[in-house]
This record gives sequence, structure tokens and C-alpha cells, in this order.
Amino acid sequence: MSKKIIVIGGSAAGPKAAAKARRMDEFAEITMFQKGPDLSMASCGFPYFVGGFFDDRNKLLCTPTGVVRDPQFYWNAKGIKAIVNTEITRINRENKTVEFTNIETGESGVEGYDKLVIATGATPNMPPLPGINLKGISTLQSMQDADYLRKVRDEGHIKKAVVIGGGLIGLETLEALHLAGIELTLIELLPQLLTFLDWKIAKIVEKYLKTKANVITENGVAEFIGENGKLIAVKLQNGTEIPCELAVVAIGVRPNIKLAKEAGLDIGELGGIKVDEFMQTSDPDIYAAGDCCEIKNLITGKNVLAPYGDLANLEGRVIGENIVKGNKVKFPGTIQTGICKLFDYGVGITGLSEARVKETEIDYIKVVNASPDKPGFMDGKLLITKLIAERSTGRILGVQCIGPGDVSKQLAIWATAIKGDLTIDDMVNNDLPYAPPFSLAIDHSIATAHLIQNKRDGIFEGISALDLKEKLDRGDDMYILDTRGPDEFEQTRLGIGERLIPIGLLRKRLNELPQDKSKEIITYCKISLRGYEAAVLLKAHGYTNVKVLEGGIAAWPFAFEK
Amino acid sequence: MSKKIIVIGGSAAGPKAAAKARRMDEFAEITMFQKGPDLSMASCGFPYFVGGFFDDRNKLLCTPTGVVRDPQFYWNAKGIKAIVNTEITRINRENKTVEFTNIETGESGVEGYDKLVIATGATPNMPPLPGINLKGISTLQSMQDADYLRKVRDEGHIKKAVVIGGGLIGLETLEALHLAGIELTLIELLPQLLTFLDWKIAKIVEKYLKTKANVITENGVAEFIGENGKLIAVKLQNGTEIPCELAVVAIGVRPNIKLAKEAGLDIGELGGIKVDEFMQTSDPDIYAAGDCCEIKNLITGKNVLAPYGDLANLEGRVIGENIVKGNKVKFPGTIQTGICKLFDYGVGITGLSEARVKETEIDYIKVVNASPDKPGFMDGKLLITKLIAERSTGRILGVQCIGPGDVSKQLAIWATAIKGDLTIDDMVNNDLPYAPPFSLAIDHSIATAHLIQNKRDGIFEGISALDLKEKLDRGDDMYILDTRGPDEFEQTRLGIGERLIPIGLLRKRLNELPQDKSKEIITYCKISLRGYEAAVLLKAHGYTNVKVLEGGIAAWPFAFEK
Repeated sequence: MSKKIIVIGGSAAGPKAAAKARRMDEFAEITMFQKGPDLSMASCGFPYFVGGFFDDRNKLLCTPTGVVRDPQFYWNAKGIKAIVNTEITRINRENKTVEFTNIETGESGVEGYDKLVIATGATPNMPPLPGINLKGISTLQSMQDADYLRKVRDEGHIKKAVVIGGGLIGLETLEALHLAGIELTLIELLPQLLTFLDWKIAKIVEKYLKTKANVITENGVAEFIGENGKLIAVKLQNGTEIPCELAVVAIGVRPNIKLAKEAGLDIGELGGIKVDEFMQTSDPDIYAAGDCCEIKNLITGKNVLAPYGDLANLEGRVIGENIVKGNKVKFPGTIQTGICKLFDYGVGITGLSEARVKETEIDYIKVVNASPDKPGFMDGKLLITKLIAERSTGRILGVQCIGPGDVSKQLAIWATAIKGDLTIDDMVNNDLPYAPPFSLAIDHSIATAHLIQNKRDGIFEGISALDLKEKLDRGDDMYILDTRGPDEFEQTRLGIGERLIPIGLLRKRLNELPQDKSKEIITYCKISLRGYEAAVLLKAHGYTNVKVLEGGIAAWPFAFEK
Repeated sequence: MSKKIIVIGGSAAGPKAAAKARRMDEFAEITMFQKGPDLSMASCGFPYFVGGFFDDRNKLLCTPTGVVRDPQFYWNAKGIKAIVNTEITRINRENKTVEFTNIETGESGVEGYDKLVIATGATPNMPPLPGINLKGISTLQSMQDADYLRKVRDEGHIKKAVVIGGGLIGLETLEALHLAGIELTLIELLPQLLTFLDWKIAKIVEKYLKTKANVITENGVAEFIGENGKLIAVKLQNGTEIPCELAVVAIGVRPNIKLAKEAGLDIGELGGIKVDEFMQTSDPDIYAAGDCCEIKNLITGKNVLAPYGDLANLEGRVIGENIVKGNKVKFPGTIQTGICKLFDYGVGITGLSEARVKETEIDYIKVVNASPDKPGFMDGKLLITKLIAERSTGRILGVQCIGPGDVSKQLAIWATAIKGDLTIDDMVNNDLPYAPPFSLAIDHSIATAHLIQNKRDGIFEGISALDLKEKLDRGDDMYILDTRGPDEFEQTRLGIGERLIPIGLLRKRLNELPQDKSKEIITYCKISLRGYEAAVLLKAHGYTNVKVLEGGIAAWPFAFEK
């Protein structure tokens, strides 16, 4: 008799599990239930539909050759019975059945399974605030949300909008609406955006974002204000009112675990379904994948919620194989690699941020490198990378990378390096593909590894922008040395009491430096390469307390004098 | 007393060694001799200057902030005495001196060293053919070559040119001259271009290249024909004459080892200077780096000539540290990663090609994957990847990647994976940065790993385009199944006797297939994803000899019917 497989959820992990199971077993009966009307939506693509990168909504629902992934497609091409607009209301583990209700017709029924896959996803959090039900308040989670916001773009009536929440989805939505010609304000309750990044890196992104939108941090929404049932403003916790006709809420998601919980499956501490490395729940006939689950962070060993579309697919594939062949393949876990496009910037992380390393016992070193991705003559663009490694072994713990340069490639390199347990000493001679259209002769990632090696080996000492700012604010007595050229100094400068001595004149003008060789000296330039050379030079001339401002002016998150 | 360091060569490895030595020792006397007039030229950038990607030649000679790297810059900024237009004529190892001659003034002298660095580079091979000294025959190796070819572009007189040699430099030069509006013919003596790639992959590149230029393979130049001392045509070995006013020769380079050889240093079997992993020659006070050396291939363990600009820099850095601190750091070797831009294509390799794996004892598996780099709605572009792994362990041996997609990122991922000794089973769950502007939910590299896993595990059997073509040519009796849609079939088809049954109809139309279940069946589609699904389906229905055409139509290197 053929095996009966039921999949709950038709977005990412569900269809992947179903399709893989079909390829593993041509004769299994596979049924996939989807609560909404659409299947296999490219939901990560919603912001780009809203933002006008393309116009045909079907592209979000199609195979690469343009066939809409509807129930008929699933049946014909994959032999999968896909049932839409139908909610599973109960899992009965004893009978091994599920109960379902068609949410349009109200019709209900029961279906038996040998193996069950739960891929119920997550639901956007909505703040329980006055006015939350006004017209003009949306999320960007469903195809219907995407259609609504795209309509906003196409109609062009709405002039002002707020985005609530400065995470990945919030920022992607902000870009999309900005491209629709809407004036935007971003509201974030916490003191920084993108809390998976470290403070300084997030602040550089914020500084950039402020060239596109109003950004309000450390201030939440207190109330949505309406007129005739329509949103006209949001009121912040500090009383400020921001007029707007549209508010998009993006304050995170929570796993949909109601069914699993009611069925008595184990739920993790973070509120996601517990699964083992086979993606099997506490019931051996039930598997779960995607945003409704907790999975393991491979660096800390602790469980995390990691609602990423790529992981959902990989997890679904593992399930598809295991439910047919028995537990054969493992999903090892995640290092929580994430990226988003923010106008001309890429912004992302792989592995741990410094803040998260601090929650562990690991002793670490870190460095910030700001340098271009390609040669100047090939229109190279800036990358700012923060690299964190274990002090004793050099093992790479995490990398944050932002900037107009090729962030995606950098993170892909570092993610693979973490996968391979590589150390900074391995990375200094990584044999990467080099030609000027693609990278510098010494790739940015290699230069970053060189830099942290130099720092670890005591060749230079670094100081972060944040630490320097603190010193400045408390009035520390320092000698601050800008080593750029006079032209550059005329164009941009920090204005923190620095003196200018171009690197090429430094050897001749050493006499201008403090006589006291133990005086604290901070060196920098545009990206702190010349700053680094200056520090090494001064150290050789007996200065004992020289620090390089890491990432230089390019990574300075505060205001410039000019 | 301060250490005296002499560096012979001022292009890539030399300046890097000198600069790193300076940062390691502020008080060393460092002198760098350069035979030509320019220092630290970005020679890999020459084709882009010739091709008009930028106009200011100084950009090839400048720091990122626009300071020309001339002797004064080296002295002021780095404390390095750089002497140009000056040839080292002899190394005297007993006295530890070098003899030099200024090639402009004829002045000569002797200079002593404690440590000597040989970074003499390589010289382009020139065929010893009649007419080789005619005006209009050039290489693209020196700044002077670049200036000459750029002048050709700017003047616009030359209408027809040939490029001799289908390697990296040849193809980059071809693109540059094509962009200058010149009609081009590429001449390659061997049966394929880019011999570091496998035949089929190279043929796909050749097919693309033929949309831009005439391509002649298996035919060398026999004679350069001139009139009044100027080139007017090249005559091929088969007698064909190709009219042209310009010929650029790019048939490889040979290491400049005259000085080293005369000084009695060990020379390797391939004609490069022998160095150990500290980049030290057979004389402990002499180091060598860059194109003049042999280095180790990390996969085969054998020495190779690897004249790449990125490696020269990394090697130079290692020397800079070792000559100051004693042998502290190692340059492990290379996996010979290389890439070039060819119009809208990226073309590259990391690790071994199948041809080179065959020279070893390693038992291997391989797969070709053709699929886009990004979703269709984000204008994803095709990538064709050939992955080779060790059969027993799954260890990655080599990856070739070509196409209009983001080849550079793919190769960077695989190069790092090889560095980390990763297997295909590691790569299937590589946690890469995903968002639609940057990749598919399942990145192309991961999909490639999935595919080879499926092949290894017997889920499908593949056939290469080359093997299928051979079968067709010898008239094998096969059933060839195209699983695309009728629209696609109308637009493009191979015309190799295939029948069309769209994947969505295959289950219903199984009766149309051969009754003999052992009959050889070949399945494919545009990229062979649906072809793969069809093969799995047919296998489940009892067909025992089903093969998927790897890479599908996208990777078919031969002509299409339409």
C-alpha cells in the first residue's frame, strides 16, 4: 500500500518537503493543505513587487518558465494534491488523522496520514494599541499584503507612510515604499536598527538610511490616530504625532504552533516547535520545518528562531527524504546568515555579532576593515566588514558586512569559511578568483583577515569609533592624527581635534608629534590603511600608546565636521 | 646596523614584499629595482584601460586616493628607495651584492644586501615566425603595450585585428579591442580555448564568443605578412590569410629566471625558480615570488606555474615578513583559482578540471548544473557549473563556472570550500546569505551540491552533452525526451530526434514511451530540472536505463536546430 503523506502549509518548507518526497517515492499519496489561496509564493520577493522592480504579480507564483504553481500544476507536474483555502483545525495523533475546513465553503473533513509535515510558518506580531484596526495599517507578510501595498504604489494617492520596526522586513518595506514615491518615517522602539548587527555597524546603516527617510529610534508607537476609520497619523510614546496615511508594521513574527501545541508536541523555550536534526518532532511520525520551528545555532549550540526562506527550503528537503527513507539525512542547524538590500547598500551578517559572542564564554578578537571591493578604475565600491574570531584558535565566529560594495559575495565567503571551521590564518591565503572586474588583487575578505592577524600579533592596536567617541566625550587627552592628503582634508573631516600630517610627510615631521612618547595617539585616514602605516611607523619610533581608528572615516558612524 | 633588503622587480610581488618588510622593520634599508619606468602597475587592469572602461592611465599607477606610485611616493610614504629604468645584471651570492645598470644612462653600480627578493616576473612568449617584427604586432604585458593599444582605440584607424592565443589574457584583450570597435579574429592552435577548462565548458564559452568575434581553433599562425614594414595579414598553418592591421600575441608567459639561474639558484622542472613554503630559494638569503616562481598545487601536491596577480601579492607579503622576522609565515600554495570577464560572461575555475583530475589516481564523480543566480523576478541570470568531487569522501576537487550570472561569487564560495576541505555533503546545507536581490532561496552552489549528491546516491544517472553527441553521431538507438512546454519547444530545440512530452503531462502519457523498459532514454529540459524529475518518474515506473542530459539545453555546446 502506498504511503500517505500530509503536509500542512504550502509556502516554502511545505512544498519543498512534498516535492522531495515525491521524487523519493513516485507512489506515495501526498496531500498538501494551504490555508490561503496561493501556493509557493516567493514571499521574500514581496518588497520588490511593491517597489516596482517588476510588475507582474504572477512572477511571484510561477516556475522559472512561467507556469503558475497552482493546484493543477502541483497535480500534473508533481503528482501532489494541493488543497488551498483550507485550514487544518486539528491533528489527531492517535488516529493519525488531520481535520480540515475549507474556509470559503465551510466544508470540513478528515484525512489520514502515515507521515505528517507541519510547516505552518509564522504570524507577524501586531502591537495591541488603540487604532490598530484602522484602514491603512498593514503588514508585508501575505500575497494579499503585497497586492495591497502594490496598489498603494500604483494609485499614487498616499504621500506619507510610517514603517514600524527597523528589522530586515521593515527596511525592505521602507525601500519599497520609498521607491513608490512616498515620504517615509521609520520608527524603532530600541536604540538601534537591525539588532542582529553590532551597534556601530547598525549606526553606519542608520546614517545612510537617513539620506532616504526619517529615522526615529528609542521611541515606540503609542496609538494609531484615525479619521472616519482611516489612519491619519501615529502618535509616538513621547507624544509626537506623525501624519501618515499608511503604517506598515514589521516588528517580528511568532511561530504558528497552535496545532502542534494542541496535539501535545514538544514546544521549545523560544516558542517554536521542537525538532531534532532529522527535523522530527517529539512524535516520530510528525516532522516540522520552516518558521514554526526552533533550530540549532551551530556556533553557540543553542536553539534559535530563524525564519529565513532559504533555511525553510533546506529543512523541507531534509524532511522530504526522511519521511520516505527513514531518518537518513540531517539538517545540522544554522549560523544565522542574513542579508538585505537597502537602496545601494547591502547589509548582512553571518555567524555571531560581538554582542552575541559576549553572551558566551569565548574570548575573542575583532577588527573593522573599510576598503573597496574592486579597484578604483573598475568603479570599486566601499565595503565595511567587522570580523570576530576566537582569540586562542583564530576560528571565525562572525562577520558583519555592509556598504555599496559586493556584500553578498563577502558574506558567502565568510559563511563558507565558518562552515569549514576556518581560522583567520587560513583565510589570509584563501585562493579566491581575482580579476579587476570582480575584486582587488587582495580581496577585501583577505585584507580583513590580514588586519585581524596584525592586530592579534600586536603589530598595531585598534580603537573602535564608539570607544574613541566615548574618550572624546569625557575629554581624554589624546593626540589625534589624520594622515590623509590636504585635498581630502579640505573635503571631509571628522572635526575631533585632529592634526593633519599626510603619511608621506610623517617621517620628516615626527618632531611635531608629542615629546612624551607614552602619550595616547590615535591615527586614521579615509579607511585607516595609511592610518595603520602611521601607527606602525610611530611605534617603531618609540611611541608606546598608538591606536588606529578602525575603518577610518569610512566607518565613522557619527556626524562629520564637514 | 640596519638590515639591507634589495628587491628586484617593482610590479606586484616586489612592492608588496618591500612594503610589508618596511612595516615589519621601520629601520631596514629597502631598495627596489625596476627595469621599466613604472612601478606597481595594475597590469591586470590593462585590458580595461584599452577597452575604455576608464580613460586616465594614471589610475593604473595610483593609490586609491590618486597619488601616483612613483619613486617619490615610495620614499615619502613607505621609506622605500625605488630605482626605475634600472636592470639588475648579476647577483653575486658570495659577496651578497647585486650589479645594476641604468638602461637609460648606462650607468652601473653594485649594491650589497642582507636579504634579496627576486620578483622578476615573466615574459610573454613570442612565436619565432616570419614577420614577427612587423609594426602592428604587440603583446599586452607592459604599460607601454597598454598605451599602444589604447592609442589604437583612441585613433580609430585600425579596423581589423587578430588575437593569437585563446587563454585568459587573449580573451580579455579580445574583449578590449572589440569594445574599441575593431573586427576581431581569435586564433588558437589547440582544439579548444581556455585549456584550463574542460572541453565542454570551454565549448560553451566559445559558442558565446562567436557572437562577438570570429574564432578559429586547431589552426596556428604560420607567418605575419607585411607591407612597408607594417602588418597587413596573418597567414595560418592551413594557408588561410586573414587581413588585419594589428595582431596581439597572447600565447602564455615564461618565468624570468636568467638572473636566478646564473646565480646558481635551483630551478624547477617547469622552468620557474624553486622556493619552499617560506618562499625561500635554495639560498637562504634569497627569496622569490610572483610569476618567476613555481609554487605547489594544494590538491595534487605538484608544482605549477601560477602567474596570477593575487598570488604574487600574497607571496610578496609572506616574504616581507620572513625576511625581517626569520621564516615565520608560510605560503601554502594554490588551488589555481582563476576568473575572467568576457563581455557579459564570467568564466572561471577553482581547483582541478576533470582533465586534470584524470591525471591523478583519484576516483571522482561530477555533475553539470545550469540554473539562474537569482529569481526570475529579480532578473536572474544563468550560471553553468561543473562540479567534481572525490567519489569515496565527497571532497570537492574542482569547480568550473561560466555564464552571465554571478560567477565570481560562486567561485569564491567553492574556493573557500576547498580551502576548508569541505565535502558535497557539507555544502548541501551551507548557510549562505539569501535575499532575492542576491540569490535564489537555494543558492546555485547548494543546488549543484544537491545534484551531485542525487547522482552519487543513484537517484538519477547523468549524461554529458559530449557523451550524448558521440552516441548520436554513432547512431545509438535512444528515446530522447524533451520535457518542456510546447511554447518553449517552438522557440528553441536541439533537433536530435527528441519527442516532446511536457513534464505536466508525462504521468498521463507514459503509454507513449517505449514498451521495452530497458531501452535507453535521455531526458532534458531547459536546464534539466524538469528533465531530472522526468528521469526519476520514469525510473519509478520501471525504466532501467534513463539518463538526464546534464545542464539541459542551457549547457548544450553544439548548434541548435532552432
